[in-house]
Amino acid sequence: MRILFYATATKPAPWVDGLKAALPEAEVAPWEPNSPPADYAVVWSPPQDLLDTQPNLRAIFNIGAGVDALMKLKLSPRTQLVRLDDAGMSVQMAEYVCHAASRHFRELDAYEQDIAEGKWSYRKPRERADYPVGVMGLGVLGTRVAQALRTFEFPVNGWSRSAKDVPGVRCFSGEKGLDEFLAASRILVCLLPLTPDTQDILNARTLGKLQPGGYLINVARGGHLVEEDLLTLLGSGHLAGATIDVLRQEPPSAEHPFWKHPKITLTPHTSARTLRDDSIAQIAGKIRAMGRGGKVAGVVDRQRGY
Amino acid sequence: MRILFYATATKPAPWVDGLKAALPEAEVAPWEPNSPPADYAVVWSPPQDLLDTQPNLRAIFNIGAGVDALMKLKLSPRTQLVRLDDAGMSVQMAEYVCHAASRHFRELDAYEQDIAEGKWSYRKPRERADYPVGVMGLGVLGTRVAQALRTFEFPVNGWSRSAKDVPGVRCFSGEKGLDEFLAASRILVCLLPLTPDTQDILNARTLGKLQPGGYLINVARGGHLVEEDLLTLLGSGHLAGATIDVLRQEPPSAEHPFWKHPKITLTPHTSARTLRDDSIAQIAGKIRAMGRGGKVAGVVDRQRGY
Ligand SMILES: NC(=O)c1ccc[n+]([C@@H]2O[C@H](COP(=O)([O-])OP(=O)(O)OC[C@H]3O[C@@H](n4cnc5c(N)ncnc54)[C@H](OP(=O)(O)O)[C@@H]3O)[C@@H](O)[C@H]2O)c1
Ligand SMILES: NC(=O)c1ccc[n+]([C@@H]2O[C@H](COP(=O)([O-])OP(=O)(O)OC[C@H]3O[C@@H](n4cnc5c(N)ncnc54)[C@H](OP(=O)(O)O)[C@@H]3O)[C@@H](O)[C@H]2O)c1
Repeated sequence: MRILFYATATKPAPWVDGLKAALPEAEVAPWEPNSPPADYAVVWSPPQDLLDTQPNLRAIFNIGAGVDALMKLKLSPRTQLVRLDDAGMSVQMAEYVCHAASRHFRELDAYEQDIAEGKWSYRKPRERADYPVGVMGLGVLGTRVAQALRTFEFPVNGWSRSAKDVPGVRCFSGEKGLDEFLAASRILVCLLPLTPDTQDILNARTLGKLQPGGYLINVARGGHLVEEDLLTLLGSGHLAGATIDVLRQEPPSAEHPFWKHPKITLTPHTSARTLRDDSIAQIAGKIRAMGRGGKVAGVVDRQRGY
Repeated sequence: MRILFYATATKPAPWVDGLKAALPEAEVAPWEPNSPPADYAVVWSPPQDLLDTQPNLRAIFNIGAGVDALMKLKLSPRTQLVRLDDAGMSVQMAEYVCHAASRHFRELDAYEQDIAEGKWSYRKPRERADYPVGVMGLGVLGTRVAQALRTFEFPVNGWSRSAKDVPGVRCFSGEKGLDEFLAASRILVCLLPLTPDTQDILNARTLGKLQPGGYLINVARGGHLVEEDLLTLLGSGHLAGATIDVLRQEPPSAEHPFWKHPKITLTPHTSARTLRDDSIAQIAGKIRAMGRGGKVAGVVDRQRGY
């Protein structure tokens, strides 16, 4: 069995060594244009060339949850596309989103500012009932995030394509349910996959439907957000602020207005990082299962795009 | 039935009105030195004079969880002392502590600094197993905090006077268990009541037993912490930082070194605020129960001091 590895923004050696250790029967090597035909590829943002020179792969394992970069490429119908299935990401995402929501709700950023100015002053505690959180996407990550927000007793709404039933969460679905979901929410968390249907979904119209003083937490993909529309709504005051982990272009140019915007907290795509050891264990397990002819979780439906 | 109200740092009118609305049969008024004898008092940090002029109170309701200020006064043995029992505080405390622990563990403060400097750079994700959290005090607040930390999969240790069994939490107890508890923890959360036994418990010896790169979150009382010892351990690098919500003197003097310390996040005693409506409802319920001759939760054991 032969396995190829290719990823942008991470060193191949520890992945190649880890896969070798987990699957001693396999030959594992970084991909090169003249690599011999392989059975599996483990990738992040591969070039079209990899897919063209390896048309007979049984499966491509994406070392992330979002497969939008792969969906832009031409992929042989013979090859299964498999996403990373949690692998330590959902707990990170729950933690990141709760931190951002609580920081805003409890005004902890404003308190930090007060202390920097030498002020020891109380702010009137806000009512949690006035801060319902809407989670867009109730998949592996969104469901865990919604449940974690319930731990802190936020009212939580959820929105997905198909109808869902998540305990403690008011669930909406489909295009029909979107406006009602938005109108019921003040803090909005985006955890959708990036597909033709969800591209630009965070825009003046949708963000404008949030309750006044709304707050956006975008932890999905930069392509979900029309960045100028966010700036407009922050300017008008309809939105109070935003925490943004993903941008249309990463890293952003030095002139990007989010860097120093006083109402935006920006982080460098770090809300839920791929944990190498957990991911290697998961991928090795799936390769073994496929070798035995079994089915694996996380196979992407190319029609839906996620 | 007559009820008196006295509190520092809050306006009496909304409390008096709220108690009247909840107990229409009662006469409710702010305490004055010549107030007629009352049945109950609802207080925060009252003067000794209140207790001396009202020796026949059936109960004093403290509008907070910590009764240390009251324990310093001379109180008639006829009068029951009743603490506020959760009343919306434990969820706030869980939220505040998780925010502080996650902010440190995930380096979100450092990322904010990076972004301010125009840097879009990844930091190697830390291992959660390397950040066990120790919660001192497994009462109403500590137990809820410990459970919330488990939501984010932190290893959690707990320490209390009597032996406890909290699911998912490694429990230690008594003076005998203290050193082992500290050595097993890297982030330390103090949620003890302030009593003669716990005064100054956060000092060079105990904080020195935490795992290197330790982090202190003090949300109990300023009197638990020997402030100079924290500064020394931050200086030596044994502790990486601290989040401090309470101080020996509040507000602190303008010269207090915590205001601008780069490794200390300071907040003005706001980690779990008394929520007026919830508190009034709870106190009114207890007054009704006592009127029927019933027992109420939260009666302070004066021998223990909490
Ligand atoms: N910033 C980061 O560090 C980071 C890390 C990991 C992942 N992510 C992003 O997070 C995304 C979500 O991950 P996941 O694992 O939770 O995905 P997932 O399990 O595939 O769940 C996707 C959810 O979105 C819903 N959805 C998809 N298209 C929709 C549409 N057109 N309208 C309404 N709902 C729609 C799905 O509805 P159904 O349930 O009806 O199918 C599902 O509930 C990833 O795609 C990735 O882009 C970001
Ligand atoms: N910063 C804020 O905004 C804020 C707000 C509310 C409260 N507080 C503080 O938080 C404290 C805790 O509140 P709570 O409602 O959780 O109190 P609680 O229910 O009375 O619990 C106290 C816990 O501390 C333990 N304990 C007491 N003395 C001890 C000792 N000598 N050694 C070891 N453990 C000891 C108790 O052990 P046992 O279980 O064995 O009795 C118990 O588990 C309050 O007293 C108050 O000072 C701060």
